[in-house]
Amino acid sequence: MNEVEAKPVWHRRNLLDINSLSREEIEALFKTAHSFREVSTRSVKKVPALRGQVVVNLFYEPSTRTRISFTLAAQRLSADVVDFIADASSISKGETLVDTANNIIAMGVDTIVLRHPAPGAARFLASNVDVAVVNAGDGAHSHPTQGLLDLYTLLDNLGSLEGRRVAIVGDISHSRVARSGMLAFRKFGAEVVLVGPPTLVPRSFSELEGVTISHSLDAVLGDVDAICLLRMQRERQGAGLFPSLEEYSRLFGMNSERLQRCRDDVLILHPGPMNRGIEITPDVADGERSRVLAQVTNGLAVRMAVLYMVAGGSA
Amino acid sequence: MNEVEAKPVWHRRNLLDINSLSREEIEALFKTAHSFREVSTRSVKKVPALRGQVVVNLFYEPSTRTRISFTLAAQRLSADVVDFIADASSISKGETLVDTANNIIAMGVDTIVLRHPAPGAARFLASNVDVAVVNAGDGAHSHPTQGLLDLYTLLDNLGSLEGRRVAIVGDISHSRVARSGMLAFRKFGAEVVLVGPPTLVPRSFSELEGVTISHSLDAVLGDVDAICLLRMQRERQGAGLFPSLEEYSRLFGMNSERLQRCRDDVLILHPGPMNRGIEITPDVADGERSRVLAQVTNGLAVRMAVLYMVAGGSA
Amino acid sequence: MNEVEAKPVWHRRNLLDINSLSREEIEALFKTAHSFREVSTRSVKKVPALRGQVVVNLFYEPSTRTRISFTLAAQRLSADVVDFIADASSISKGETLVDTANNIIAMGVDTIVLRHPAPGAARFLASNVDVAVVNAGDGAHSHPTQGLLDLYTLLDNLGSLEGRRVAIVGDISHSRVARSGMLAFRKFGAEVVLVGPPTLVPRSFSELEGVTISHSLDAVLGDVDAICLLRMQRERQGAGLFPSLEEYSRLFGMNSERLQRCRDDVLILHPGPMNRGIEITPDVADGERSRVLAQVTNGLAVRMAVLYMVAGGSA
Repeated sequence: MNEVEAKPVWHRRNLLDINSLSREEIEALFKTAHSFREVSTRSVKKVPALRGQVVVNLFYEPSTRTRISFTLAAQRLSADVVDFIADASSISKGETLVDTANNIIAMGVDTIVLRHPAPGAARFLASNVDVAVVNAGDGAHSHPTQGLLDLYTLLDNLGSLEGRRVAIVGDISHSRVARSGMLAFRKFGAEVVLVGPPTLVPRSFSELEGVTISHSLDAVLGDVDAICLLRMQRERQGAGLFPSLEEYSRLFGMNSERLQRCRDDVLILHPGPMNRGIEITPDVADGERSRVLAQVTNGLAVRMAVLYMVAGGSA
Repeated sequence: MNEVEAKPVWHRRNLLDINSLSREEIEALFKTAHSFREVSTRSVKKVPALRGQVVVNLFYEPSTRTRISFTLAAQRLSADVVDFIADASSISKGETLVDTANNIIAMGVDTIVLRHPAPGAARFLASNVDVAVVNAGDGAHSHPTQGLLDLYTLLDNLGSLEGRRVAIVGDISHSRVARSGMLAFRKFGAEVVLVGPPTLVPRSFSELEGVTISHSLDAVLGDVDAICLLRMQRERQGAGLFPSLEEYSRLFGMNSERLQRCRDDVLILHPGPMNRGIEITPDVADGERSRVLAQVTNGLAVRMAVLYMVAGGSA
Repeated sequence: MNEVEAKPVWHRRNLLDINSLSREEIEALFKTAHSFREVSTRSVKKVPALRGQVVVNLFYEPSTRTRISFTLAAQRLSADVVDFIADASSISKGETLVDTANNIIAMGVDTIVLRHPAPGAARFLASNVDVAVVNAGDGAHSHPTQGLLDLYTLLDNLGSLEGRRVAIVGDISHSRVARSGMLAFRKFGAEVVLVGPPTLVPRSFSELEGVTISHSLDAVLGDVDAICLLRMQRERQGAGLFPSLEEYSRLFGMNSERLQRCRDDVLILHPGPMNRGIEITPDVADGERSRVLAQVTNGLAVRMAVLYMVAGGSA
């Protein structure tokens, strides 16, 4: 992409989590993502970067939208894509993750995009196989492309995160999106405030430098540059972690009344799919401060860049 | 496709139903379909018409064969195709149709092929999003590509439908195939007779010009140029709408004995999948008056033409 | 692939079972597979051999790995691939296999890869349709590409099978893998010994020339050049065909202790997915005598060759 590149910043074969990336690597990645984002606006949305290469989506959890985002990203780079949905077929047959992966690899595959319920699954796989591994979510641990696309979206709007303050609101405890976002924003200098009911925000996170915790959304509203809402999993309700969705919505839902108390240029993010009326009201979701669809667009560009970089491309 | 085209007849971005199409638009579409049908007979079954474009099958109902027909149509035009099967993944997560569609669109998609159980879903979507929408069936309302492929097949065999008479036989009430066919055939001048038990033919349809109702297949047999059989949904049996499949078959099933009482050149159509032995006997299904497989072949050509036209191609 | 080929050896449109192939045909196929295997090692893993052709995986049984192997094989030849998973959609709608296939064919398809629970399904289909049919497993009858890839792997390692002795170990009765392997190895001159508990090895097989039966793995260990382990289906346990998985593993499982009693250059094969700790211990599975992953790699090459040959390519 770049004519003169003395020494490429990025030379890793995997994307496993946010923490292991340097700020320089992320910047190199975003530079690539930026040029790929332009490709998606063309009539012919395709570049030959990965022609003749094979990307396999190895998914041990259902996830239509992340899978489709990676699929479109790979297609747009001219790679062939195959889905390996490991449900009935493999898990029930008792095959190990490494055996399944090695089988796939033996067919001549370049990159495995892994979604797995076990934290650490992507790193474990990467250390046991010989192809590129991209973590598409491993339990509550990490979802690095989500963290990166959120970061990309903030930088795209704010220019820089130095001295900025970003709230992440919702069920922090169970969220790999929160973990990945928090780490990504910190790496670029933002202060992060984690907002949610005490049962859903791990107290230990307040020990991280630049991270604070608040149990009141109203208390932080006026003081942040961006608010990243998390999807409230309806399943949590039964587990006694919060009284009801209505209660949650009343205390932590983003609505137009709260939006008016925010800074004029506040950014509202949500990883989707949105529970309209619960963590976000429709007017906010569709309003001019919302960056929800930009996140999706940027997510595709970031995933194109990730697939390109782990395959050996340089920024 | 055509060198000199002063003013293209077709300039719509969507295909939502039969009614909104003019006869001229359908003729332009069929002209395109005709040239695409030839592509499918080649050894290299591919034209670059939609290279670098992305078609998404957004299906809220299972439908292997319609989905595959659209998939092959898109591939044959060199488009990339992604299936978004909205089951567990999205509906259960409570996301709205428009949110799901906007998410897909934000990834850089050109055309959404929508199958949805709610009548009007395609029109609703088209008026809320910015990409081409093709209705692949919305409840009992419309299945326009089916109506068009049936019409194409009749015209391909009969030359013209002026003064012709076409029977549609079966469960008219619940059938988007019947509605779409009826409207398509009327638009090209055919008289339509709807045939079925009184419980399965809405009386109101007899108010349409050129449409009559009969409860006796035997009474109309000798008087029609084509007979479009509908698939009898076995589920209706339990609902008390007709006594039994045997009874239905005896009164409304097409068999060789009935075929002998038809005109020599009668055409037998069926949208598939056929219940052999219920609405059609094997000898008729595989006989020389059957156009069942021609419908499938024509369906692919019509869908190629639709995808091409809504993407901005001209006849 | 070859400049001078006076008369091609292979001129069949189908691959239905091992028995109908001549040794010369298999050799021609393997010659093609050999050149395709090299393609999979390239950075651009793609040749234009089947560009514009369409391969449909028509699968009436779930099988992620065989399906993906055929998919990657077809993609690598530049064919378009569509999966038709005939579950809810078609079988439940009562459509016949031939109707479903003819529907697919009417859309302009070149090759059907069929997986079906009924023995003989592939041959039945091939005699009723007009396109190439590849058997990807029909009940307990045949799984010819598996037999061929096992044969290919043995020849690749041993040069020739004349005078060699190959053991197939496990549930022979229910295994199309065993049947296909046995026939393939015999055709190239190997002696085959079928090993398993009396309840799982059909006595009639001992009537085949060059085939013997043993109920003791220990008795044959030192005397064979290759051991093909079969996957033990856990479901058999409840059927009273053998006492327990532990018992089976103790008597017929391959482990390092048994491996030491084999010839130094013995080859260990397994069709996957492996039950580690049951029919094979991890150290043997991952050890230097194992050819399990080579089988997968060779399987892809063999399937590329099959798709290429039935489409009219010559060795």
